[in-house]
Amino acid sequence: MASVQDISVSASINLLSALAFLLAFAFLRLQPFNDRVYFPKWYLKGIRASPRSSGPAVRKFVNLDFRTYLKFWNWMPAALRMPEPELIDHAGLDSAVYIRIYLLGLKIFVPIALLAFAVLVPVNWTGKTLVDIKDLTYSDIDKLSISNVPSGSKRFWAHIVMAYVFTFWTCYVLYKEYKIISTKRLHFLASANRRPDQYSVLVRNVPPDPDESVSEHVEHFFCVNHPDHYLTHQIVYNANKLAELVEKKKSLHNWYTYYQTRHERNPKNRPQTKTGFWGLWGKTVDAINYYSEEIEKTSEEEAAERERVMSDPKSIMPAAFVSFKSRWGAAVCAQTQQTSNPTLWLTEWAPEPRDVYWDNLAIPFVELNVRRLLMTVALFFLTFFFMIPIAIVQSIASIDGIGKVLPFLKPLIEAKGIKSIIQGFLPGIALKIFLILLPTILMTMSKIEGSISLSYLDRRSASKYHLFIVVNVFFGSIITGAAFQQLHKFANQAPSEIPKTVGVAIPMKATFFITYIMVDGWAGIAAEILRLVPLIMFHLKNTFLVKTEQDRKQAMDPGSINFSVSEPRIQLYFLLGLVYAPVTPILLPFIIVFFAFSFMIFRHQIINVYDQKYESGAKYWPDVHRRVIIGLIISQILLMGLLTTRDAPKATPLILILPVLTIWFHRVCKGRFESAFMKFPLQDAMVKDTLGRATEPNLNLKTYLQDAYVHPVFKDIEFERPPVIDEEENNPLVSTKRNSCKGSKTGSIGSPDGGV
Amino acid sequence: MASVQDISVSASINLLSALAFLLAFAFLRLQPFNDRVYFPKWYLKGIRASPRSSGPAVRKFVNLDFRTYLKFWNWMPAALRMPEPELIDHAGLDSAVYIRIYLLGLKIFVPIALLAFAVLVPVNWTGKTLVDIKDLTYSDIDKLSISNVPSGSKRFWAHIVMAYVFTFWTCYVLYKEYKIISTKRLHFLASANRRPDQYSVLVRNVPPDPDESVSEHVEHFFCVNHPDHYLTHQIVYNANKLAELVEKKKSLHNWYTYYQTRHERNPKNRPQTKTGFWGLWGKTVDAINYYSEEIEKTSEEEAAERERVMSDPKSIMPAAFVSFKSRWGAAVCAQTQQTSNPTLWLTEWAPEPRDVYWDNLAIPFVELNVRRLLMTVALFFLTFFFMIPIAIVQSIASIDGIGKVLPFLKPLIEAKGIKSIIQGFLPGIALKIFLILLPTILMTMSKIEGSISLSYLDRRSASKYHLFIVVNVFFGSIITGAAFQQLHKFANQAPSEIPKTVGVAIPMKATFFITYIMVDGWAGIAAEILRLVPLIMFHLKNTFLVKTEQDRKQAMDPGSINFSVSEPRIQLYFLLGLVYAPVTPILLPFIIVFFAFSFMIFRHQIINVYDQKYESGAKYWPDVHRRVIIGLIISQILLMGLLTTRDAPKATPLILILPVLTIWFHRVCKGRFESAFMKFPLQDAMVKDTLGRATEPNLNLKTYLQDAYVHPVFKDIEFERPPVIDEEENNPLVSTKRNSCKGSKTGSIGSPDGGV
Repeated sequence: MASVQDISVSASINLLSALAFLLAFAFLRLQPFNDRVYFPKWYLKGIRASPRSSGPAVRKFVNLDFRTYLKFWNWMPAALRMPEPELIDHAGLDSAVYIRIYLLGLKIFVPIALLAFAVLVPVNWTGKTLVDIKDLTYSDIDKLSISNVPSGSKRFWAHIVMAYVFTFWTCYVLYKEYKIISTKRLHFLASANRRPDQYSVLVRNVPPDPDESVSEHVEHFFCVNHPDHYLTHQIVYNANKLAELVEKKKSLHNWYTYYQTRHERNPKNRPQTKTGFWGLWGKTVDAINYYSEEIEKTSEEEAAERERVMSDPKSIMPAAFVSFKSRWGAAVCAQTQQTSNPTLWLTEWAPEPRDVYWDNLAIPFVELNVRRLLMTVALFFLTFFFMIPIAIVQSIASIDGIGKVLPFLKPLIEAKGIKSIIQGFLPGIALKIFLILLPTILMTMSKIEGSISLSYLDRRSASKYHLFIVVNVFFGSIITGAAFQQLHKFANQAPSEIPKTVGVAIPMKATFFITYIMVDGWAGIAAEILRLVPLIMFHLKNTFLVKTEQDRKQAMDPGSINFSVSEPRIQLYFLLGLVYAPVTPILLPFIIVFFAFSFMIFRHQIINVYDQKYESGAKYWPDVHRRVIIGLIISQILLMGLLTTRDAPKATPLILILPVLTIWFHRVCKGRFESAFMKFPLQDAMVKDTLGRATEPNLNLKTYLQDAYVHPVFKDIEFERPPVIDEEENNPLVSTKRNSCKGSKTGSIGSPDGGV
Repeated sequence: MASVQDISVSASINLLSALAFLLAFAFLRLQPFNDRVYFPKWYLKGIRASPRSSGPAVRKFVNLDFRTYLKFWNWMPAALRMPEPELIDHAGLDSAVYIRIYLLGLKIFVPIALLAFAVLVPVNWTGKTLVDIKDLTYSDIDKLSISNVPSGSKRFWAHIVMAYVFTFWTCYVLYKEYKIISTKRLHFLASANRRPDQYSVLVRNVPPDPDESVSEHVEHFFCVNHPDHYLTHQIVYNANKLAELVEKKKSLHNWYTYYQTRHERNPKNRPQTKTGFWGLWGKTVDAINYYSEEIEKTSEEEAAERERVMSDPKSIMPAAFVSFKSRWGAAVCAQTQQTSNPTLWLTEWAPEPRDVYWDNLAIPFVELNVRRLLMTVALFFLTFFFMIPIAIVQSIASIDGIGKVLPFLKPLIEAKGIKSIIQGFLPGIALKIFLILLPTILMTMSKIEGSISLSYLDRRSASKYHLFIVVNVFFGSIITGAAFQQLHKFANQAPSEIPKTVGVAIPMKATFFITYIMVDGWAGIAAEILRLVPLIMFHLKNTFLVKTEQDRKQAMDPGSINFSVSEPRIQLYFLLGLVYAPVTPILLPFIIVFFAFSFMIFRHQIINVYDQKYESGAKYWPDVHRRVIIGLIISQILLMGLLTTRDAPKATPLILILPVLTIWFHRVCKGRFESAFMKFPLQDAMVKDTLGRATEPNLNLKTYLQDAYVHPVFKDIEFERPPVIDEEENNPLVSTKRNSCKGSKTGSIGSPDGGV
C-alpha cells in the first residue's frame, strides 16, 4: 500500500516527464524543418506550403527568431480557440466527436468530484476506524476512503445516496450528450455535399445465374424491383493480387530512388545490393540496374494481372455497388429486404469509397457465420487464457529453458552479464510484445469476421479490446492472478460472492490505479504530442527518398486517431472513475486531469496533425455510450458487493434497483437515438433530393457516379483525391478564419491514406 | 419413488378416463342437436346448415340411425385425411402450422426414442449399480435410467455420444422445419388474395401540429415523402367508450330476449327482475319493460357518444392507417425510418383489420418504455415470488386464519364436516385459482405493454407463460420449494453447482413427470375434444336467446386455438423429452403418445371446430423454434451437471461445446429464416403488384381501401364479415372435396369473433 509520500514522488516524476515531453514538443515544432511533422494537416489541405526559401539557408532548418521561443506555450490556447462548427468542417465529425468523449469525461466527473469531496470525504475522514487499527497496510489515503467507515455504520447511507446521485448525473449527462451528438450527426449528414455513398448501396451475395453475367443479373434485378429509382451499378473485381503487385512496385520504386540518391551524392561509387531477403544475402549486383529491372518486371506482371482481372469472369465477385437516381431510392433499397431468401441480395448502405475494405466483399453467408463463430470462441480464449502461451514462452525464455531447447547456447547465456539480462528482461518481454501486438491481433480477427468497411473494422476491434481491458486490466489488477484462474474461481463461487470478492479488494487498489493513471494517462498522453516515430521517419524519408514537392507530401505521415485502440483505453478511465467515485473519491482529480489534458492534446493533434482515413459521421457513438453504461453497471454491482461485506443496512436491495434502472435507461436511449446512427430517414433524403434538384437541375448523376466505386488499383497510379474532400474545399461551409499562407494548391495532392 | 405397479395403475386410470372422454364425444357428436357445437367451423363457412326438418321431430334432436354408432371412431381417420394444402386453405396457415408443432415433436422424439432404447437402455440396464444397493427408494424404472450406471464408469461415453447425436438430430429437424414453414409462409403470402393489410401501414406517434389536424398532417407528410405511392389514409378514433356502450347494449338486448322468451312460454306470468347488480337486489320491476327502457336509454347514450367521437378533435388519436397505391410502396414505408426522430412517425405493417387491438393505438413512446419496464419487473416478481401472496391467502384460509379474521364464523367452521372440507380443500384452492387466472393475468400484462395486434398479444403472453412454466413447473418440480427460495439458494451457490444440484435430482423425478404427462397430456387433451363448456353454453343460449337462424349462428362459440396458453404447455413436453432422452429414456414413449394423440385431436378440432380470430401467417414460428432451442440448451447444461457428479470422464468440456454450437445454430437459423417472418421482401411485393395490375387493370383501389380500417363500432351493428374470408370463399384455391350439404349461404353470416 503506497503512502502519500510515494504517490507524491510518483506524481512529480510523471509530471516532470510530461513537462519534458511538452517542452521538447514546444521546441521542435518551432523548427521549420519539422513543420511537416507537426502541421501535416495544413499541408494536406493545401493551406500551408514549405517554408519560403528567402533569407539565409539556415533559416530553412532552424528557427533563429528567439521571440517565438518565449511564446512556446501558445499552442495550447490556439488548440482550444477553434470553434466546434469550424472544427467539424476542418477535421470531420469523427474527430470532433472523438474529443467530445474527453469532454464527456469532464462533464461527468467534475460535478461528481465536487460532490464527493463535499460529502463523502468528510464522512469517510471522520469514520475513524483506521485510527485505532494503526496498521501499516493502511495509509493516509485510505482514511479518505470507504475503508475508514466502521462496519454496519449508518454512514453508509451517504454512500448509497451518492451512488444514486452519481448514477442519475451520469445518465443525465449521457442522455444530453447522445442527443447533442445525434443532432450533430443529422446536421452533418444533412449539410454534407453530394457524395457517391449517398446514392449507392452495396449489394452482396448476388446469386449465380446460368444465363447471365453478374453485371447483367444485377441490372435486371434492380430494373425490375426498383424500376423508378435504379440508375447504374458497378461490379466488384477480386483485385487483391493486383493490389499486392502495385504495392510491391511502389516499394521497389522507393529502393530505386534511395540508391539513385546515394549515387548522385557519391557519383564515384555505384551502390550495390544483394538479391536475397532485405538485401542481406544472395548474389551481389548493381543496385540501380537491379531495381530498374525489377520494376520493369513487376510492371509487366501488373499489366498481365490487370488484363486477367478485367477479362476473367472468375475474378468478378458476386457483389456490386448499385447507384440510384435519388437519395430516397438508395435509402429505400438500403433499408428493405429484397428477396424472400434473406441471405441473397443483401443490401446495405455503401461505405464511403475510401472506407471500403475491398478484401472482404465476397464472403458467402454461411462462411461468414462460421467465421464469426470461430472468432467469438477465439476472442473468449484470447481474453481469458492469453496468459497460458505467454507463460510457456516465459518458461522457455528462462535460463533453464534456453539451456534445454538450445543446449549449444548454454555457455554463452551463463556468462554473468548476459545471465542477469536474460533473467531480468526476457520474462517480461514476452508479455510486453504480446500487449503491443494485441491491437493488431484483434484487428486481424475483425478482418476475418468479414467486415466490409474500415470504420466497422475499427469499431469491432474496439469492442474486443474493451472486453480485454475490462477483464485483464481492470479485474486482473484488482484480483491478482491470470484471467483464467479468476474464471475458474468465479465458476466455483456463488454469483453473489463475486461482487463481494472484487468489491472488498477495490479500496485497496486505489493507489495502484492512481499510479497507473499518472503513467499511462499523463506521461503517455504527453508523449503522443511529440510524435517521435513520425518525426524520425519523416527525416529519414526526406533525406533518401524525397525528390519533388509531391514526394515530400507523400513522405508526411499525418497518422490518424486510432479509434480501435484509444477509445477502449478512455473507457478504462470512465470505469475507474465510476467505480472509485463512491469508494475512494481521491482518485477522481487524477482522472479529471487526464481528461482535461487529453482533451487539449488531441484537439491540437486533430487540428494540426491527424488526417482521418474515412469519415463515418460519428457512427461509433452508440458504442461509446454503451461502454460507459457497462462501466456504470459494473461500478454499481461492485459497490453492492463492497457494502454487503461491510454490513451496510439494506444496501443490497437498494443498490440492486440501480442496475435495473440503468439498463432500462440504456434501452430508452437506444430506442430514442440509435437509429440516427444506423438508418437514414426518408424525410431527410427527400429534403436533400428536392434541394439538389433545385440547385443543380442539369446534373448528370450517371457520369458523377460512374467511377466512384472503382477499386483503387484501377484508378491512376497517382492516387486521386477522393471527391468528397475536393468539394469540401471548393465551397467550404464555414470559411476558415485562420491566417494561412495560401500555398501551391495546384498539382495533385497527396493521398489521404498517407502514401507509405 | 413410484414403482412400475404404481405407474401402471396411473396409466390405466388415465387411459380409461381418456377413453371415456372419447366415447362421450363419439356419442354426443352424432346427435343432431349438438351439431353446431362439434362442427361450428362448417356452419361459419356456410357449407353446413341446420339439420333438415323432414322426418319425425325426434330426429332433429337424437340420432336414431344405429349404424352410425358402429362407426363412431371414424372421426379419427377423417381428421387425418384432409391434405395439408386443403387444410391451410380451410383453416388458415396459423392453425395448420400450429398442429405441425406436434408433428415436430414426433419427428424429433420418435427417432431419438428408438436410438435411446437401442443404445442407452441396454447400457443402463447392465450397469448394475442398483442391484447391489437394494434400496427401497429405487424402482425398476431406475434400473433403465442413468442412475444404474456406476460413478466414473466408461459407460458414460455412451451418454455423451448420444447427447451429441440427439442435439444434432434435433437441430437438423428444427432446421428442416423452419425451412418448410418459412417456405409455406412465403407461399401463403404470395398466393393470398388482395387484402387491405397488404397495402396499408400503421403510423403511430404522429407529432401534433398547431396549424393542421392529424388527418391533414398525415396526408401532407406522406404526399411529400412518398409522393409516387401514397394513396389514402384513415385516422384512428378513441372509441373505447363507445365500444363499451355497444357491448352493454348487446348484453341488455340478450336479457330482453331472454325475458321475452320466458313470457312467451308462460304468457300468464310477466317476468320480473330487480334493478340492482345481477338482478339480485334493488327494486322489483317488470323485466321486459325495464330492459326495453334500458336499451332505449343506452341507444341514446350511444348516439350521443358517436356524435362526440366524430366531432371532438380530442378523440382523434395521433395514429393513422396509411394506404399505398402498391404493395411495393407499403413494403417500403413499413420497413424504413421516416424522420430523424425515431420516436415519431413510427411505421409498421398494419395488422389485418380483425387483428387490430384498438385500445392500444395511441400510447406515446416514453409511456411505452415505462410500461415495458414495469411489466418486466412485474413479470420477474410474478415468476419468482408468486408463492408469497398465495401462502398468505392460504394461512388466512386455514381454520385458525378464518377464526381470527372473521370470528363470528367460528362456530360454523368448527362443525366437523365443514372443518374437514376447509382443511382439505381451501389451501389448495388458492393455488388452483391463481393457476387458472394466470393466463388472464399474463394477457393483461401484455395488453399493458402496449401491443397493437391480437396476434402479437398472444405471442407476448406465450413468452411470459413459457418463462413461468420453465421456472415453476419444470425447475419447481425438480427442486421442490418455491421459486423464490430456489432463487435465493442459487444466488448463494457457485454457478457450476447449479447444474449439479438440478442434474442430480433429474433421474429421481422421472416417475413424477411420467404421471404428470399422463394426467395433463393424455386425459387433459381428451377432455379438450368433448368441449363441455361450449356444449352447455350453446344449449342454454339455444333455449333462451335464439330466435332466428342468425341468432343461432351467433350462439355458436367455435373458440380458437389459445396460442398464448397451449404453445408454452407443448414446450414443456419438448423440454421434458430433451432433458430425459439421455437420462431416463423410458419417459419418451409417454411423450410420443402425447404428441401423436394431440396431433390427431387438434387436427380434428381445427377442421371442424375452431375459428381463428386472426390470421398472422404462422408469424409465431420463430418463438416456437427459439423455445425448443432453449429446452435443448437446458437439457445439455443439466446433463453436464449430472455427469459431473457421477465422475464421468471429461464430461464437462465435451458437453460444454454443445450449448455453444446450439446457440450458434440458433443464430444461423435466425439470420437465414427469421426475416421471412418479420419483413416483406420487395421482389415479392413487385411480383404481386405486377400480377394484380395484369389481372385487374381497372380496380379502384381507393374505394376498396376506404373503410378497411374503420373501428368496428363505426361499422353497421350487424357485424360485417371481414372481406378476407369472403374472397377466400368466392374463389377457393383448392376446391374442398368434402361432401357438404350446401346450405343457406345468403343472409349475413355470424361474426368470426363469436357473438357475445
